[in-house]
Amino acid sequence: MPKKKTLKRYKHQVGKLKGQVKKLKSKLKDGVSTAAPSLVSPFAPERFPDLPDIAGVEFASAAAGIKYQGRPDVMLARLCPGSTIAGVFTKSSTRAACVLDNQAKLNGNPTSELGAAILVNSGNANAFTGHAGQASVDAISAKVSAALDLPATRVFTSSTGVIGEPLPHDKITDALDTLTSALSPAGIKDAARAIMTTDTFPKGAGATLSAKGGEIRIAGIAKGSGMIAPDMATMLVYIFTDATIAPALLQKALSAEIDDTFNAITVDSDTSTSDALILAATGQSTAAPITDLDQPDGKAFCDALRGVMTDLAQQVVKDGEGATKFVEVQVTGAKSAKDAHLVAMAIANSPLVKTAIAGEDANWGRVVAAIGKSGAYAERDLLSIRFGDMVVAEKGWRKPEYSEEDASAYMKQAELVLGVDLGLGTASKTVWTCDLTHRYIDINADYRS
Amino acid sequence: MPKKKTLKRYKHQVGKLKGQVKKLKSKLKDGVSTAAPSLVSPFAPERFPDLPDIAGVEFASAAAGIKYQGRPDVMLARLCPGSTIAGVFTKSSTRAACVLDNQAKLNGNPTSELGAAILVNSGNANAFTGHAGQASVDAISAKVSAALDLPATRVFTSSTGVIGEPLPHDKITDALDTLTSALSPAGIKDAARAIMTTDTFPKGAGATLSAKGGEIRIAGIAKGSGMIAPDMATMLVYIFTDATIAPALLQKALSAEIDDTFNAITVDSDTSTSDALILAATGQSTAAPITDLDQPDGKAFCDALRGVMTDLAQQVVKDGEGATKFVEVQVTGAKSAKDAHLVAMAIANSPLVKTAIAGEDANWGRVVAAIGKSGAYAERDLLSIRFGDMVVAEKGWRKPEYSEEDASAYMKQAELVLGVDLGLGTASKTVWTCDLTHRYIDINADYRS
Repeated sequence: MPKKKTLKRYKHQVGKLKGQVKKLKSKLKDGVSTAAPSLVSPFAPERFPDLPDIAGVEFASAAAGIKYQGRPDVMLARLCPGSTIAGVFTKSSTRAACVLDNQAKLNGNPTSELGAAILVNSGNANAFTGHAGQASVDAISAKVSAALDLPATRVFTSSTGVIGEPLPHDKITDALDTLTSALSPAGIKDAARAIMTTDTFPKGAGATLSAKGGEIRIAGIAKGSGMIAPDMATMLVYIFTDATIAPALLQKALSAEIDDTFNAITVDSDTSTSDALILAATGQSTAAPITDLDQPDGKAFCDALRGVMTDLAQQVVKDGEGATKFVEVQVTGAKSAKDAHLVAMAIANSPLVKTAIAGEDANWGRVVAAIGKSGAYAERDLLSIRFGDMVVAEKGWRKPEYSEEDASAYMKQAELVLGVDLGLGTASKTVWTCDLTHRYIDINADYRS
Repeated sequence: MPKKKTLKRYKHQVGKLKGQVKKLKSKLKDGVSTAAPSLVSPFAPERFPDLPDIAGVEFASAAAGIKYQGRPDVMLARLCPGSTIAGVFTKSSTRAACVLDNQAKLNGNPTSELGAAILVNSGNANAFTGHAGQASVDAISAKVSAALDLPATRVFTSSTGVIGEPLPHDKITDALDTLTSALSPAGIKDAARAIMTTDTFPKGAGATLSAKGGEIRIAGIAKGSGMIAPDMATMLVYIFTDATIAPALLQKALSAEIDDTFNAITVDSDTSTSDALILAATGQSTAAPITDLDQPDGKAFCDALRGVMTDLAQQVVKDGEGATKFVEVQVTGAKSAKDAHLVAMAIANSPLVKTAIAGEDANWGRVVAAIGKSGAYAERDLLSIRFGDMVVAEKGWRKPEYSEEDASAYMKQAELVLGVDLGLGTASKTVWTCDLTHRYIDINADYRS
């Protein structure tokens, strides 16, 4: 016969477990997920990529305690004398003070032959902070200028994080000694980490190309996860090259590549107040100067730059808040480039398409609805819809051979291609997006980002 | 001493409960909610409102088993001879066959003095079903025409539900005997229920007004919960009145009210392929005919119609998929009506604003970002933002007296007002939306709607 004590223990355990079941059931009913906040994107690479060293750039990062504790939240990049700089920025009408300041500095000093610096903080966006916003930028610029012996007009800054709270810029300037003494060409990886907010992995990409007289190297880092629908610009991206290239030509190369890279991604259709991409060329390569983007070296440089930009942009989508699927939306056969863009973005931003993808549901009807609302010209009987290589609908209805089973099997893949041919013309557009999951709600309903 | 059997039973129970806990924990980790699919909106009224009887209209509903089992999914409304009809429809370029058919019929027969009928099914949208779509509409129209002795051109149809699957119209026509024998003026409540898809409550609204010669009555029903971002039209809405009014004037009254009612709501920014609002006037009231919308009776009719339309539109938002908050977005001080609309809809559609509201987070910084991305002209230092009566930000930054505690307390309310004054002009726009919650993901990632 078992002991009374044993039975009591079991009884107690049953009571406890019943309570636990009740609690868990109620949590589930409320739709509350307890997914760990540190959950990492399934697309996170095993490790940060090896990036080529860019002669003439040094990086440092530090923990200034702006909002996050116990992690680096400030990064400094120093560029050697002779560096040229280009940039693209958000068109938001409520853009942050640092964005306005960078734009003014680039317009005012496009051809300076002096060195330069980039200082970035995470945890606070310094956006919608009134005149205090510019005062913070000025204070930081002045201190960096003094510390690195540069004109303040060559100090570029970015801030990312919560909007509307005054930036505690003293915390940043207090960290300057630590930063300047730590500057090193190898610091790019830690810099990529310091600029993260809701990102789950640091993002880097690089390229090396052969040119007349030597190699040209490109290395870039980016942050971005939510509030991603860039408009002529992007999140925060810093790309460095040792190429020798005049500022106007550098800007031209950058502007030529932006539409098919960072302006071709969306996570949640929300555009940030802080989007900025800064591209700096140190001129330290032994390769001959690039003087024409249509000549072989210029073309090769643009190709490599586009490669780095595409890689970084796709990493931002792969780290989209709550993303479990990476989706390429390919629109072809549009009457105009504008229509192709409208249709691609209507699909990529549709909450119903994105939740269907999250649920691995081959719900191509929602793609039809997104095309319909896009504002682009479309004719029902001419358009066709593909999941991967599988045509699911054409000539105005579901393909007779359509197999729900095959389509469902395809939807289980982590990386999906969703193709739409409008059957009207030759314009096309490819954009990248992710799915919309419970985790997006967790992150954004529970966390003030 | 306890019995061995008793102990065994407890042991078994512990094992079972442990398994249950493990399963529930894993579900929670995946963010999967098991919230009952029948979960009802917190805004659901206690009961369907008492609507005035509209002389000259009869309703019937039936369970045709199109997709749902064991619930009504077809409704029929018969209108007496002399009824006039107006309508507004989605501008989607992939709109459903029934929408195209209704538009053609209204254009072709705007002044018919014959009776009419409206037949609506839920469970299948008959959208993107190629030429089979129109064939289904024709088959249904022909059978209703024969059953009610009406020309087929006076049979209006709507279908709502899954897109892209052929409509089993035989199931609908098979139910016609049941429907025609059940026609009754009191059937409006069941009709409101028959047209539901993901709706959690049937929607009705009515008004009675005094006019020269007698009373005029208006009664309407609507369905809608997801894929709600009407574009010159709405979900499915049927409004009936006994007023005597010519078709062109009826259409004018309807078109005048659509922008500030159904075109001023959004649940998820996705526009349906099936949006339709049909307004029928039976002419059975003893009141004098309405011949001028600017005369007292005409004005009173428009006011009452707007009231019914606003009520129904707000019910659609309150039953928005997963909604726990009802939000009125008031934009004032815009340079133009277009800008006011752009800003209001950018805020109402922003996933980040909507998740912040779900999380009861007074995150007005996300409102700033939404204004910034809207495309409307805005000046940071002129705009101000209100939560209810509480000004939280003005003159380009957070108000010095801002209290996070007060703002957080306000966010706990179920109905919220979010005000933005752009400080630039006199144009204004009010729109209604809801929050974005886990339940929206549940509904749309797990259910093919």
